[in-house]
Amino acid sequence: MHIGKVVGNVVATRKDERLVGHKLLIVQPLSVCRGSIRPAGDTLVAIDAVGAGIGEMVVYVCGTPALRVAGSSGAPVDAAIVGIVDCVEAPAPPEE
Amino acid sequence: MHIGKVVGNVVATRKDERLVGHKLLIVQPLSVCRGSIRPAGDTLVAIDAVGAGIGEMVVYVCGTPALRVAGSSGAPVDAAIVGIVDCVEAPAPPEE
Amino acid sequence: MHIGKVVGNVVATRKDERLVGHKLLIVQPLSVCRGSIRPAGDTLVAIDAVGAGIGEMVVYVCGTPALRVAGSSGAPVDAAIVGIVDCVEAPAPPEE
Amino acid sequence: MHIGKVVGNVVATRKDERLVGHKLLIVQPLSVCRGSIRPAGDTLVAIDAVGAGIGEMVVYVCGTPALRVAGSSGAPVDAAIVGIVDCVEAPAPPEE
Amino acid sequence: MHIGKVVGNVVATRKDERLVGHKLLIVQPLSVCRGSIRPAGDTLVAIDAVGAGIGEMVVYVCGTPALRVAGSSGAPVDAAIVGIVDCVEAPAPPEE
Repeated sequence: MHIGKVVGNVVATRKDERLVGHKLLIVQPLSVCRGSIRPAGDTLVAIDAVGAGIGEMVVYVCGTPALRVAGSSGAPVDAAIVGIVDCVEAPAPPEE
Repeated sequence: MHIGKVVGNVVATRKDERLVGHKLLIVQPLSVCRGSIRPAGDTLVAIDAVGAGIGEMVVYVCGTPALRVAGSSGAPVDAAIVGIVDCVEAPAPPEE
Repeated sequence: MHIGKVVGNVVATRKDERLVGHKLLIVQPLSVCRGSIRPAGDTLVAIDAVGAGIGEMVVYVCGTPALRVAGSSGAPVDAAIVGIVDCVEAPAPPEE
Repeated sequence: MHIGKVVGNVVATRKDERLVGHKLLIVQPLSVCRGSIRPAGDTLVAIDAVGAGIGEMVVYVCGTPALRVAGSSGAPVDAAIVGIVDCVEAPAPPEE
Repeated sequence: MHIGKVVGNVVATRKDERLVGHKLLIVQPLSVCRGSIRPAGDTLVAIDAVGAGIGEMVVYVCGTPALRVAGSSGAPVDAAIVGIVDCVEAPAPPEE
């Protein structure tokens, strides 16, 4: 999984019918570097299992495991938000 | 999933027979950065579930989940377009 | 999938026995940028379903879907060539 | 798999219920370069099969195989720590 | 698959029990560029199906297909060495 920030959503009327009912959220991946959190790489589009909103920090899963979140819809998805981050505990390492 | 733009298609007469009947579209990945959309990384080739055309912005899925779009053809594919984007709602964040 | 160019092959006498009978071709990934085609990233090794030769442009599939090409051999592969490219239709976009 | 260093953990109260009981550790990937070990790329979030703690060097697995670590919980995960590294044996190559 | 060079191994006493009996080799990915072979990207950790040793050039497979090499051990792995490279045949292309 990775942590990311929800930065938007995609509106798509014409889509695979198994996606109907799934929100498509745009997520900016984040990385932890020496105790601070920063954007890392390009955005992706994820479905949402936990009611995340724009601006929230989340945990998301990619690839085939995301199908477990799609569940009985059978939706063809490769990314899903599986948690809302309360906090990240990542102490800055001592200087070496 | 990711958003991308259809920029072309591939013509291949000699191919795995399970691919016959699937259009092979070339997709330029896009990323959302501070509210604007820009190309991000190298193109890929995807089959199409929704009738996308050149120049359209789409949502595509990668990896094993794309096999769900191939369906009963059993085609060996790792990317599939699953939606046409009407719009991307990604407000530019406030300056920090 | 991606387009690529076959640039060589790997000779390996000692190998997983399920790979016996599969050619191992070296493929240089290609990307389409504003209507032209250029190398993109590092080479990979793929089995071949369509009789591709050195110098040919191909379409290849990665990951678990490539197992569909390995078929009954049960070979542990993560990339397979699934088509020979006749041509790539990717008009250069108008200047914006 | 890759080697990495545990640099923190994520606290998430609202999450897919199948993740309850799994610790979510933040891992910094490491790479071996000419006999020395250095950080490589962005952090990820992994569940833990072996009781790893912050500061420890670990081996982790990504993608669908990580589901084997989730086991009967059925948790939607794409990364899991599967070993604690005692040491890395990687002699620096002779100068060429 | 990719070609790579075995550059070391990982010693891990505490690990998922299904990994017991599997050697964990460190592999430096290699890429073929205009007929010559060079390191490409960060190292990974792979199990070994063919008795590879440090310094040898190998072919390895990543992702779910590597589970085929783990076989009945059920080990959670995402990379496996599947061949020892005798030679790479990659003629330098003519200047264009």
